[in-house]
Amino acid sequence: MTGTSTDLPRIPATNLKEKFDLFDELWSPRIAAELNGQHLKLAKIKGEFVWHSHPEADELFMVVRGSIDIELRESVVRIEEGEFYVVPKGVEHRPVAREVAHILLLEPAGTLNTGDAKSTRAVPDPKRI
Amino acid sequence: MTGTSTDLPRIPATNLKEKFDLFDELWSPRIAAELNGQHLKLAKIKGEFVWHSHPEADELFMVVRGSIDIELRESVVRIEEGEFYVVPKGVEHRPVAREVAHILLLEPAGTLNTGDAKSTRAVPDPKRI
Repeated sequence: MTGTSTDLPRIPATNLKEKFDLFDELWSPRIAAELNGQHLKLAKIKGEFVWHSHPEADELFMVVRGSIDIELRESVVRIEEGEFYVVPKGVEHRPVAREVAHILLLEPAGTLNTGDAKSTRAVPDPKRI
Repeated sequence: MTGTSTDLPRIPATNLKEKFDLFDELWSPRIAAELNGQHLKLAKIKGEFVWHSHPEADELFMVVRGSIDIELRESVVRIEEGEFYVVPKGVEHRPVAREVAHILLLEPAGTLNTGDAKSTRAVPDPKRI
């Protein structure tokens, strides 16, 4: 269109599906990008996680494949493929997936997956992918 | 699975396609969510934007439908559906789309679409959607 695009070296973008294909571990978020102090993470989940909250961090859940429930104490958010929801800081929640779901998370760098819960499921140092 | 999910009131998640169906204006980002001082924006684009940079803001582009090029001064990033790329702060770039593309943007709240460029295409106060 511009005449310039075809002449310059091409840098590949990050393909979500290709990144998800690189791991199968459940409940083990991978850092796919960092921007403005936030981490964009990819995770595969199935089953029930632990109840927790993040006192200082809003947390976005977007479903790329499958569907999940975000259980809150007084309600439930169903997130289907192509949908997202933001859990505000301080709000107790528990992610649940009946089948393996591929999700995208956005939260401040350093946010622990288990938040304020004491749990063996904490992943304090997520891998980059 | 837990017995609790079915009994509690259900809160709907945000459906990306439904949000995109709400507007047709090109190059006019809509704010779909705010978290941790960041805005998640939706935009429909076609054609060439203006060259600009954001001195203080990294900017994530994710393509939900179609494909776009992010022209940089020395290279080009093609982003297809299901792919993303982060333009680091201070890097000059120009989004280009041959056909209408639906994109998701993530950047600090208050980031101007035209960055440091003087342009009539600035949208200083994006609508919420």
